[in-house]
Amino acid sequence: MSYATFELANFRLQRGTVLERATLAYQTYGELLPDRSNAILYPTSYGATHQDLEWLIGPERILDPRKYFIIIANQFGGGLSSSPSNLSAPLSQRYDLFTHVDNVRAQRQMLAEVFGIERLALVYGWSMGAQQAFHWGALYPDQVQRIAAVCGSAKTSIHNIVFLEGLRAALTTDAAFNGEFFTAKPERGLKAFGRVYAGWALSQAFYRDKLYQTLGFETLEDCLVRDWEASFLKRDAGNLLSMLETWKRSDISDNETYGGDIERALGSITANTLIMPSATDLYFTPADSAAEAGHIPKSVYLPIPSLWGHRAGNPAKNPADEKFIARAVQELLTS
Amino acid sequence: MSYATFELANFRLQRGTVLERATLAYQTYGELLPDRSNAILYPTSYGATHQDLEWLIGPERILDPRKYFIIIANQFGGGLSSSPSNLSAPLSQRYDLFTHVDNVRAQRQMLAEVFGIERLALVYGWSMGAQQAFHWGALYPDQVQRIAAVCGSAKTSIHNIVFLEGLRAALTTDAAFNGEFFTAKPERGLKAFGRVYAGWALSQAFYRDKLYQTLGFETLEDCLVRDWEASFLKRDAGNLLSMLETWKRSDISDNETYGGDIERALGSITANTLIMPSATDLYFTPADSAAEAGHIPKSVYLPIPSLWGHRAGNPAKNPADEKFIARAVQELLTS
Repeated sequence: MSYATFELANFRLQRGTVLERATLAYQTYGELLPDRSNAILYPTSYGATHQDLEWLIGPERILDPRKYFIIIANQFGGGLSSSPSNLSAPLSQRYDLFTHVDNVRAQRQMLAEVFGIERLALVYGWSMGAQQAFHWGALYPDQVQRIAAVCGSAKTSIHNIVFLEGLRAALTTDAAFNGEFFTAKPERGLKAFGRVYAGWALSQAFYRDKLYQTLGFETLEDCLVRDWEASFLKRDAGNLLSMLETWKRSDISDNETYGGDIERALGSITANTLIMPSATDLYFTPADSAAEAGHIPKSVYLPIPSLWGHRAGNPAKNPADEKFIARAVQELLTS
Repeated sequence: MSYATFELANFRLQRGTVLERATLAYQTYGELLPDRSNAILYPTSYGATHQDLEWLIGPERILDPRKYFIIIANQFGGGLSSSPSNLSAPLSQRYDLFTHVDNVRAQRQMLAEVFGIERLALVYGWSMGAQQAFHWGALYPDQVQRIAAVCGSAKTSIHNIVFLEGLRAALTTDAAFNGEFFTAKPERGLKAFGRVYAGWALSQAFYRDKLYQTLGFETLEDCLVRDWEASFLKRDAGNLLSMLETWKRSDISDNETYGGDIERALGSITANTLIMPSATDLYFTPADSAAEAGHIPKSVYLPIPSLWGHRAGNPAKNPADEKFIARAVQELLTS
């Protein structure tokens, strides 16, 4: 896997810990124009690396590298940037280190120092990527021209937290969790994590219509084992909990600038903001997105008409949803 | 806890095991008329005993014991009727013994032999209770005048199975599960089970509006610990898995009579059937209920307009939903 890294010396995290040497891993696609006007930032979603997301970049896909310079930034906790899996003890045993404020601060410093980019044409993100896009919009309004927030939120809803608490509980029920950290790979816990996740990430109708068969899984059990269990068995459990904590506490107003006033934080976003929930998303619901859109001055609320639940926003194998998103993003980029 | 028991000698279960002495625990309320025309059967839901459900019976509640003779029958696996917790090894270590065909067959024999009841004015049920009501309607159409199926289904949907697989995985991740059965009380697993369940049993809007505060829980964490973790910590884990298996495979056509033809099975129900999903139920969805209602000749489809998700159908502390259900059931009983 090829990627670049940016080092941040004595990087103070929002919650107070100082990392002597923080690492931000990223990958770029396309060419930066001399006036630096064509930069798109694309922060990673839960459990994903840039490699998992680069399918979205291509001449006929959602982000066109012939026109744009696209930077995928790996979030802290994801395994390539600073994460429990690559820190030393005792920091490797703490899963509550990072917030999205840390992610966007590190991204901003990297963009300025490595590329001289002071303003982004677009921050595009799905799920936890959308959370980071909202953070950019609220914390650095002058530096973000546009936001495309797909299946994400500016502040994690209470029900979304319940969903995450269920995932967390399933994973930490494994005997390899000692109450504070994992002492070995929790295989049972990772499988359970996948099975709990499976019910939430797609919609009731997705399963009713057996759409998993379009992904090559003949039976439900085949889908649960080869898709959900297998994909989480590949992950580091500490990293999963670290990103989960970042997600759980994601709130663009939870900082000194806004002091918890979410409406003021949303109202401070000046970017043209495209808010695209999936019509059938069970944890980033359309109702929550509509409420947030109502407080963002230049926002467009456009639900994806899909049965793919939360995964409508990551339509690698779902051409209809990809086309819908691509068209909306193209329109946004010409606004 | 007071209740009666009915013994069934050499009771052959649908999946083939013969119980030398099966026990059906039940409780009655009100008086049976001499012509036996006022009997209402109310089978228990998941994890509940008759005691958990009897709040629903009262002069001003959903079922009126001044007019009706109400029998709450405890399902197999629930802890009072034959269940892993009261069987001897090796049967106590098997969680796949029972189906709803066993439940309704045992109930039918008890009603005939103890009370001489050959026809029920109503089978009322919520959730797994509704599953049993549908089984009655399909297997003994001549013996059921009316059905009130609240937040349940005749055949468990695929997504509902995914939800159950997540619960099952969370519970069996506990080190006390040896791959086949529990060797001790799985405390971590039971807590995780409760946390996973919490996200599903109520709606996103329930949490958005903090309706748990109306139940006396100040914070979300308080609700997760004192409501969800606590209520499952009281249960026997083997019983929970036993009922889960019954639920997962619930299908009124999975028997010799219908040979898997669900439309024929639904079409054979002759009872006046009231189908009441909750508008916000996440696993017994209104869409699934509407589809089943479409195949039942004398059915009325009436969603409960509620934010309480699946719990709308068990509104012990939710007067608006109780009133809605009570009115509909009263109408059904006069039909």
